[in-house]
Amino acid sequence: MNCKEVLNIKAKEIDGYLEQYLPKQKEYPSEIFEAMRYSIFAGGKRLRPVLLLSTCEMLGGNSKEAIPFACAIEMIHTYSLIHDDLPAMDNDDYRRGKLTSHKKFGEALAILAGDGLLHHAMEIMANACVENCSEKTVKAMQAIAQGAGVYGMLSGQVVDVLSEGKEIDEKTMYFIHKNKTAAMLQGALKAGAILAGATKQQVEMMEQAGEKLGVAFQIADDVLDITSSLEELGKPVHSDEKNEKNTYVTIYGIEKSKEMIQNLSQEAICIFKTFSKGTFLAELTQYLIDRKS
Amino acid sequence: MNCKEVLNIKAKEIDGYLEQYLPKQKEYPSEIFEAMRYSIFAGGKRLRPVLLLSTCEMLGGNSKEAIPFACAIEMIHTYSLIHDDLPAMDNDDYRRGKLTSHKKFGEALAILAGDGLLHHAMEIMANACVENCSEKTVKAMQAIAQGAGVYGMLSGQVVDVLSEGKEIDEKTMYFIHKNKTAAMLQGALKAGAILAGATKQQVEMMEQAGEKLGVAFQIADDVLDITSSLEELGKPVHSDEKNEKNTYVTIYGIEKSKEMIQNLSQEAICIFKTFSKGTFLAELTQYLIDRKS
Repeated sequence: MNCKEVLNIKAKEIDGYLEQYLPKQKEYPSEIFEAMRYSIFAGGKRLRPVLLLSTCEMLGGNSKEAIPFACAIEMIHTYSLIHDDLPAMDNDDYRRGKLTSHKKFGEALAILAGDGLLHHAMEIMANACVENCSEKTVKAMQAIAQGAGVYGMLSGQVVDVLSEGKEIDEKTMYFIHKNKTAAMLQGALKAGAILAGATKQQVEMMEQAGEKLGVAFQIADDVLDITSSLEELGKPVHSDEKNEKNTYVTIYGIEKSKEMIQNLSQEAICIFKTFSKGTFLAELTQYLIDRKS
Repeated sequence: MNCKEVLNIKAKEIDGYLEQYLPKQKEYPSEIFEAMRYSIFAGGKRLRPVLLLSTCEMLGGNSKEAIPFACAIEMIHTYSLIHDDLPAMDNDDYRRGKLTSHKKFGEALAILAGDGLLHHAMEIMANACVENCSEKTVKAMQAIAQGAGVYGMLSGQVVDVLSEGKEIDEKTMYFIHKNKTAAMLQGALKAGAILAGATKQQVEMMEQAGEKLGVAFQIADDVLDITSSLEELGKPVHSDEKNEKNTYVTIYGIEKSKEMIQNLSQEAICIFKTFSKGTFLAELTQYLIDRKS
């Protein structure tokens, strides 16, 4: 099986877990569950939960204990996309080839569906910590909260929004990608390592790898936004240009951006390969930067 | 000292803790901290953190351990107000006599400031659970997450938004108030009790009291919206009417609503008075339903 096939199998497994944590509801508040489920099951790659569970397995952990955290991180990621797409933000009508939440349910319910997913992620992690109260579970929750929070993903989103229509320097661009995208991948790798009972040094290595992988992944996204078509990408191409968004491509050009993707991804791959069971994460990194959509 | 004076002193203490958890930032992302601080320090009563800390004290707990949870619950409450006020929701220009977040900072930053406060609450609680990993801390976090989440506060907000402009029955009205308002007060009382090491029965009693107090408090708010003036209330009066909102007053009329406030608050007071140190919470309940703003 190649990496893509393995990723697809793992993604389907995660879909099953998400179904358990986010079931259809018949009673109040069924509408909010419908909206949360619409975005959660809109066909994501499940990259963050796969990274979390695979890291846990790679380091000899019991990935069953990691499932609630994996689902929580996917919910946080999905909430961030719903809010990103809002008219006040990127104002996107499509995401993964489907109408965005506010186009489908209206703006009020889209805001609440995003809020709901973040709430639900917090609740699922808190429940997991109560069920299995240990240093590992609370530290995994902390890693995810920090990756997502005001010094992580959210700060990247804030600077991204504030930078629209302005010229920004390389340092700011790196800040955006490192936080908006990489911080949550770091959170996933870190939480997976912690849940496996990894050493402090191993956790730090995974954090390092997450930064490299995350920034490479986001530059690859910037390049795809220019080179791909709507059909391949499932969302409007050149949407960055439309929004006068700064990207690695607008700052460095396509060739230099591709070189950076190579360098960063190779650094991440090197780290993964120091682990005897690191092959899947190394291959996944290569697959992610080579993808066409 | 009367109850209002005690409440003010406690609120000032909480302001000091909030200042520590939400300091001014000079570097990225300073703007989001400015927006989060603007709403947090806009002059709230600090009711939820006061309830949490007072319950913890009443039951013989160490309220120092409870401070991060008290700050987290105030941040969650403030986030919910910022999102409630958005144009897609209640579209309010004023809150507590000051411009609402989106009027002051624009809609994008207001959405993100709300998100940021929810993220930050999660992070503060996770940090507290790491610092002091125990059944008490994780269960307190769970109580707050549940009170705020998709089966708590958020579900009330969803049904409230979906009911605008429609006639709703008593059951739905109760659902909204119980969840939108009471669930977080229940979360505060429950978390305070858990952190004090209360028995299961004591925790359940506080949950009961929270429901009664919360619904009474919200009906009092409905009545104030009709009877108070802008100057007293700090936000436009008759805003419910403007938004075609269902309230206890539109369903039951003012007299019957006042009767319900009395009955519910007395039930809460009875519960508080069964505790030897329950006087403050009993007096606070009375003060809250008698308030003029």
